[in-house]
Amino acid sequence: MASGTVLPIADVAACCAPLTRDTLAAEDAEKLARSLKALADPARLRLVSLVAASDGAEACVCDLTEPLGLSQPTVSHHLKVLVDAGFLTRSQRGTWAYYTLVPGSLDAVSRLLVSARS
Amino acid sequence: MASGTVLPIADVAACCAPLTRDTLAAEDAEKLARSLKALADPARLRLVSLVAASDGAEACVCDLTEPLGLSQPTVSHHLKVLVDAGFLTRSQRGTWAYYTLVPGSLDAVSRLLVSARS
Repeated sequence: MASGTVLPIADVAACCAPLTRDTLAAEDAEKLARSLKALADPARLRLVSLVAASDGAEACVCDLTEPLGLSQPTVSHHLKVLVDAGFLTRSQRGTWAYYTLVPGSLDAVSRLLVSARS
Repeated sequence: MASGTVLPIADVAACCAPLTRDTLAAEDAEKLARSLKALADPARLRLVSLVAASDGAEACVCDLTEPLGLSQPTVSHHLKVLVDAGFLTRSQRGTWAYYTLVPGSLDAVSRLLVSARS
């Protein structure tokens, strides 16, 4: 999977007005679709949710494999997609990698989907 | 593509607390991922946007093919995915099908992504 083609959500938030306010340009639709695709996977949604629910919105990869019931390489792949898309950041401390939710990243997607004010 | 496996967004809104508030259960993650997948396509995002921007949030399929630069069968396929996922409704009038944005459907997804209050 070419996770390198997933653009950081920050670019998406900068690009677009909410979906229902203006007609979405082709290029902006591509960017938003890539960010949504990064989230549109059950394992990745659960990873975001697990990280967000952890103390300080940070979790060790060592605590993320068991709740998902997936192998560590599979979990690491999903985490990489989320990092590339700008939803998580990764820091290495000794043996383990730690993942933190990027503040505002989910809100950015959320804001693009919300309707124009009624 | 098995669009029949896409669950209406109404079910998703009923199932889940916002992503960052509680850890997402496996079954709920499947439902939310299916709804996000229905949206996570540039053509489908533009279709939702075009319909939402039309008078009364309703558009004739005859006005949707040209802006997208796609064939009518392709556009009809994408519209079906959006109808099956609960984002649009379809009504037939004479020769043409008309598509309407389901009120609150984008907001439902938006609400699930938004962070817990800070």
